[in-house]
Amino acid sequence: MSKARLEAFSDGVFAVAITLLVLEIAVPGEHGDLAHEVADLWPSFAGYLVSFATIGIIWVNHHTMVHQFTRLDRATLFLNLNLLLWVVLIPWSTALIAEHLRDTDADEHFAAAIYAANFFVMGVSFFALWSHAGRAGLMDVEPRMMQQLIRRNAVGEGAYVVAIAVAWVSAEAALVICGLVAVYYIHPGPLRL
Amino acid sequence: MSKARLEAFSDGVFAVAITLLVLEIAVPGEHGDLAHEVADLWPSFAGYLVSFATIGIIWVNHHTMVHQFTRLDRATLFLNLNLLLWVVLIPWSTALIAEHLRDTDADEHFAAAIYAANFFVMGVSFFALWSHAGRAGLMDVEPRMMQQLIRRNAVGEGAYVVAIAVAWVSAEAALVICGLVAVYYIHPGPLRL
Amino acid sequence: MSKARLEAFSDGVFAVAITLLVLEIAVPGEHGDLAHEVADLWPSFAGYLVSFATIGIIWVNHHTMVHQFTRLDRATLFLNLNLLLWVVLIPWSTALIAEHLRDTDADEHFAAAIYAANFFVMGVSFFALWSHAGRAGLMDVEPRMMQQLIRRNAVGEGAYVVAIAVAWVSAEAALVICGLVAVYYIHPGPLRL
Amino acid sequence: MSKARLEAFSDGVFAVAITLLVLEIAVPGEHGDLAHEVADLWPSFAGYLVSFATIGIIWVNHHTMVHQFTRLDRATLFLNLNLLLWVVLIPWSTALIAEHLRDTDADEHFAAAIYAANFFVMGVSFFALWSHAGRAGLMDVEPRMMQQLIRRNAVGEGAYVVAIAVAWVSAEAALVICGLVAVYYIHPGPLRL
Repeated sequence: MSKARLEAFSDGVFAVAITLLVLEIAVPGEHGDLAHEVADLWPSFAGYLVSFATIGIIWVNHHTMVHQFTRLDRATLFLNLNLLLWVVLIPWSTALIAEHLRDTDADEHFAAAIYAANFFVMGVSFFALWSHAGRAGLMDVEPRMMQQLIRRNAVGEGAYVVAIAVAWVSAEAALVICGLVAVYYIHPGPLRL
Repeated sequence: MSKARLEAFSDGVFAVAITLLVLEIAVPGEHGDLAHEVADLWPSFAGYLVSFATIGIIWVNHHTMVHQFTRLDRATLFLNLNLLLWVVLIPWSTALIAEHLRDTDADEHFAAAIYAANFFVMGVSFFALWSHAGRAGLMDVEPRMMQQLIRRNAVGEGAYVVAIAVAWVSAEAALVICGLVAVYYIHPGPLRL
Repeated sequence: MSKARLEAFSDGVFAVAITLLVLEIAVPGEHGDLAHEVADLWPSFAGYLVSFATIGIIWVNHHTMVHQFTRLDRATLFLNLNLLLWVVLIPWSTALIAEHLRDTDADEHFAAAIYAANFFVMGVSFFALWSHAGRAGLMDVEPRMMQQLIRRNAVGEGAYVVAIAVAWVSAEAALVICGLVAVYYIHPGPLRL
Repeated sequence: MSKARLEAFSDGVFAVAITLLVLEIAVPGEHGDLAHEVADLWPSFAGYLVSFATIGIIWVNHHTMVHQFTRLDRATLFLNLNLLLWVVLIPWSTALIAEHLRDTDADEHFAAAIYAANFFVMGVSFFALWSHAGRAGLMDVEPRMMQQLIRRNAVGEGAYVVAIAVAWVSAEAALVICGLVAVYYIHPGPLRL
C-alpha cells in the first residue's frame, strides 16, 4: 500500500471525526432566554475546543510521522487502524464530558476520567505505531532523535495519566490538563515539519 | 508538510461541514399538512443556502490562497486549524438561527447575531492565516495586490460587523447581509483563479 | 484551481452525502416484534437504494465530465457548488419520502413530488455545468457528441418531470421512476469511461 | 476513470462510514449512576469494535485489490458502488444489534442475524467485484493465486453464514464469529501488501 492511500484514508477519518464534534453542541429550543441557554453550553464549547485541538495536533503529528516512513508493512496498517479506532471515539467521550461537566455528583468525575482515558489510549496507540515503525526499520530516524520522541511522548502520556487522577477531584481541571497537552504538542519537537 | 496534505485535510473538513448542513433541516412527521410544514421550514432552507454558499466560497478562496504558497511553516498549520475550528461551527450556528428565526422575542436577534459573529470570526481567522503567510514570506504576492486583498477582506469583515449590529433590529436582514457577502466574494478579486 | 482539487472536494461531498443516507433509516427500539418493524422500514430501504444509486451515478458522470475539461474557469466552480447544493439536499428529501411513503393522505404525494423535484433540479444543475463548459470552450467535445449528451440529459430530466406529475397519483410509482432513471444512466452514453 | 479517483471516492465512503459508527454509541444523560450506565453500553462498544475492524479490513483489502487492477471498466464502477452500498449500511446494522443485544426475546436473535447478513452480502459484493475483474482481465493475477483468493473468500463467507445460523441460538456468539472473521483477514493471504 502506498503512503498516499494510508494518508488519504487517515485524513478522511481525522476530517470526519473533527467535524462530527460539532454535533455534540446542542441547539437550544424555544423555551427560555437563549443568551442564557447558549452560555450554559460552555462545557460543550470547552470540550469542542480541547478535542478539536487534540485531533488537529494528532493529524499534524501523524503527517510528520508518516513523512518519515520509507516503506510500510501490514502491521503498520493495523496499528494505524487501532489509532483511528480511538480517534473516532473522541466525539463520544467529548459529548460525555460536555453532558456531565456541571453535574454535582460522581458522574462529573467519571465522565472526565473517561475523556482523559480516551486521549491516553489514543496517545499510547500513536506511540505503538511509531515504536513499531522504528523497530521494523520502516523509517530513517536517528537513535538520539528517537529518544527525544519517546521522552516527548512520555510527557503527553504522563499528563493524561495525571488528568485521569485529577478528574476524581475536579473534572474541569482534568479538561484543562488535556487542553494543555494540546498546547504542548504545538511545538514540533525534534522532528521539524 | 506538503501543501497536498494540507489541502486534502482542509478539503475533507470543508466537504464534511458543508454536507452536515443538511442535518439541520428537520424532517416533518405525520402531524398536519406536510406542504404547510415544509413551507414553514423556510428559515432552515435560507440558512442552508447562505451557509452552503459561504463555506463554498471560503473553500474556493482557501484554494486560491494555498495556491500562492511557496512553502509552509508550522504556524500556518495551526492558523489553518483555527480557521477550520470556526468553519466546523457553522452547522451549529446555522441550526441556531434556523430554529429561532421566527421567534418573536429577543432570541431571534441573539441567534442572528451569533450566526453573523461566527462568520466574522471565520473571516478574521482566514485573514490571520493570509496575513501570517504574507509576513513570513511564505508566498509570492506583490505589495499592491496584498493591499487590495486586505481592502477586500475589510469589506467582508465590515459587512459581518454590520450584520451583527443589524441582527438586533432584524434577524432576517442580518441573514440577507451574510448572503450578500457570499455573493460579493464570488468575484475573484485581484488574485485570478 | 486544478481539476484535482475540484475533484477532491466534490468527491468528498459526494462521499459524505451518500454515506449520510444511512442516518435516515430508523433503528427500531424495544417495543414490539423487531422483524415486523424492520420490514415496515421498507420505504426507508427503497429510498436509500434509489438515492444511493442516483448519487453514485452522478458521481460517475461527474468524473466523466471533469475528465473532458481542458481548463476551468471561476463560473465552473460556482456551477459545481450549485450542483453540490442539490446533491447534499438528497439525504433530506430521501428522509422525507421515506417518512411519508405510507401515509394515506396528500402528504405521501407531496413528499414524493419534492423527492423527484430534488433530482430534477440536480439534473438541471448538472446540465448547466456541462452546458457552460461547452459554451466557454472548457472541454473538447465534438458537436455531434454534445447533441447526444443533451438528448440523453433531456431523457433523464423528462423522466423526473413525469415522476413529479405521477407523484400526485402514486408516490411509489414516482420512486420507481426515479430508480429507473438511475438504471438508465448506468449506460455510459456517447462519452466512454 | 482513473484508479486514483475510484480510490479517492471509495476511501471517502469508507472513512465516513467507519466514523459514523461512533454516533451509534449513546451518551447517557443525568439519570442514575454514570459508571453503571456506561458499562451497560457494552453491546455498543462491542459492535463498534467488530464493525470498525471489519470496515478497516475491507478498506485494506480493497486497496490490495485495486492495486492489482491494470485498467477499469464501467461494470467495475457499479460493482464498487454495490459494495459501498452494503458498507454504508453497516452503521445501521451495528446500531440495530447494539440496541437489541440484551433483549431477552427473539429480537436479539433477529438483530444479530441481520448484522451478520449485512457482512455476508458485503463479502459477496466484494467477491463479485474481484471475480468480475478477474474474468474481464482487468488485473494480473496468476490462476493459482486466484484460487487461493477464492478459497480465502469462501472461508469468510462461510463463517458469516455460520454466524447467521448461530444468531438464532446466541446473538453474542454471532457477534464473536463476525469479529473472528476480521481477525482472520488480518493475515494478508496470497496477495502481499
